[in-house]
Amino acid sequence: MQEQDSAAHATGQSTRAVIAEGAGGPDVLRVVSRARPVPGPGQILVSVHAAGVNRPDVMQRQGNYPPPPGASDVFGLELAGIVAELGEGVTDFAKGDRVMALVHSGAYADWAVVDAPIALKLPHAMSMVEAGAFPETFFTVWSNVFERAALQPGETLLIHGGTSGIGTTAIQLAKALGSTVIVTAGSDDKCAAATRLGADHAINYRTQDFVDAARDLTGGTGPDVILDMVGGPYVQRNIELLAPDGRIAQIAFQQGSQAQLDLLPLLMKRGTITASTLRARPVEMKAKLARALSDKVLPLIAEGRVRPLIDSEYPLDRVADAHGRMDGGEHIGKIVLTMNSED
Amino acid sequence: MQEQDSAAHATGQSTRAVIAEGAGGPDVLRVVSRARPVPGPGQILVSVHAAGVNRPDVMQRQGNYPPPPGASDVFGLELAGIVAELGEGVTDFAKGDRVMALVHSGAYADWAVVDAPIALKLPHAMSMVEAGAFPETFFTVWSNVFERAALQPGETLLIHGGTSGIGTTAIQLAKALGSTVIVTAGSDDKCAAATRLGADHAINYRTQDFVDAARDLTGGTGPDVILDMVGGPYVQRNIELLAPDGRIAQIAFQQGSQAQLDLLPLLMKRGTITASTLRARPVEMKAKLARALSDKVLPLIAEGRVRPLIDSEYPLDRVADAHGRMDGGEHIGKIVLTMNSED
Repeated sequence: MQEQDSAAHATGQSTRAVIAEGAGGPDVLRVVSRARPVPGPGQILVSVHAAGVNRPDVMQRQGNYPPPPGASDVFGLELAGIVAELGEGVTDFAKGDRVMALVHSGAYADWAVVDAPIALKLPHAMSMVEAGAFPETFFTVWSNVFERAALQPGETLLIHGGTSGIGTTAIQLAKALGSTVIVTAGSDDKCAAATRLGADHAINYRTQDFVDAARDLTGGTGPDVILDMVGGPYVQRNIELLAPDGRIAQIAFQQGSQAQLDLLPLLMKRGTITASTLRARPVEMKAKLARALSDKVLPLIAEGRVRPLIDSEYPLDRVADAHGRMDGGEHIGKIVLTMNSED
Repeated sequence: MQEQDSAAHATGQSTRAVIAEGAGGPDVLRVVSRARPVPGPGQILVSVHAAGVNRPDVMQRQGNYPPPPGASDVFGLELAGIVAELGEGVTDFAKGDRVMALVHSGAYADWAVVDAPIALKLPHAMSMVEAGAFPETFFTVWSNVFERAALQPGETLLIHGGTSGIGTTAIQLAKALGSTVIVTAGSDDKCAAATRLGADHAINYRTQDFVDAARDLTGGTGPDVILDMVGGPYVQRNIELLAPDGRIAQIAFQQGSQAQLDLLPLLMKRGTITASTLRARPVEMKAKLARALSDKVLPLIAEGRVRPLIDSEYPLDRVADAHGRMDGGEHIGKIVLTMNSED
């Protein structure tokens, strides 16, 4: 399963990296050897210790989510590790700093380069595995729920997929910042896990109509913000359920982006639908987001009020098993790849 | 055409008021006599001098836009006039003050009661007719374009229906506040009127594809904000045209609120659709909006940089002709009813 690049190995300048050979199930993933990347001006070279597995990685593996222009074919959107080299002009970091970052590709590897403005130093309380599981979901939830949908203390947030990496992050952040949280999940066990994490209410969408249930739980008003990655038929149902002046934050369309919609209820409720992905954002937007996370969220981590929920860890060579676990849908929290166990 | 209520007339406590007898064309409108309303606590009685005619009035006449619960069946959403009586506890106004207000019904009348927190005093430079034409379009544009869609100086705004009351208001406000303005309109004459008002570009949608034309005019990027009241097939086309991080402000659905949509481009662009009407908003929201207008927009009126564009004036008894003019679609700017010519 592992190619060798003996020249690179001989000089110590190689890195393991995960790519896909074709599109399909976890078995299309390959651990190959590539030349170790070199940090350009304003970049840092990171010895990667942990990289989170995310839904977009699965979509990329299936051939449905090509990397944006300029990104490499190496998988992985988030990483944590140790700064090994500084590119020209980098002054905010030193060799040996523990950092994490949201990247647009290349995290499933032993070595990665990162634009310095988007890297965050780890709070002392945070492990490498937790940090490798942090950027994608925390940046996504912060950007979509707290910035774009502007969830306020005292408001109610409905989270679809409450035990996903996104869901477990959103539960913790929204509770820490003073909101009421309702989640949907696909089993009673997952509902129980969500309430253990702090959700006020959990709706098993296989046994209950989530619109009826969430309306009852909000005294008929509906949630102020809905975080949705399902799409398809959920779009209209979210609009129906939404509270007056409510906001829907759409972050993916797992059941498709096409739907026959009636937007009149959105108008009558003065509602908003905002939709976004992180990946295609320019570096300056990611850097701005990184500063917001550093100010608003890392203190919650340092205080122990919020932490990434880890489902499982897999060494890089077992990346196919890690993807298989996500495909199975039984995970609660984040699946993380680990590297450089020699450190 | 005018009913009489002799008891009310005998005590001087009557008012002319416009209602609809059934639903249909302008000929269903009736000028009737009603008891003059009495201001409750926190309300003022206004001797109405001017009331704007708005698209929602036409929809209400056609039976498609019933007044919200608690509103009377008397037409009219905006008025200007003179304070004649103060309800209990009103301290911000005095008899004789020139005021204007956005109301949820009852403006097509000689007398109307208004919740004091939503009334605005007129700048000296503003005539009664201008003031009667101000609240609905200026509140709508301010709330939707500048608050909800957060148009920023330097950004580009696309306005559908550039010569409507809403359109002419949006052109002036957006230009006064530093944006580039593109409008669509249905004739070359209307396009010329829009550019005379300050629009940078006008697209005749009968002879040009507005998506292609607006994309060209923005160097391929698309507008940052789109103000739309058309709906129907425009929803998807607006999404296609929108700039990255753009916002669509939907204020009506003249071509219907139902559409087969693909929201994926909205996600890829990090776009937002916000939809709202003014009418059903609680008094406290309208009061907050009134304060924003007072702070941000009335100074522009006082400086002569912005003013309501008046298409035509009709005395109240000719309300059917006023509606006929709106139905005809040839108006540019606002159609206004006038009352109390004895003053």
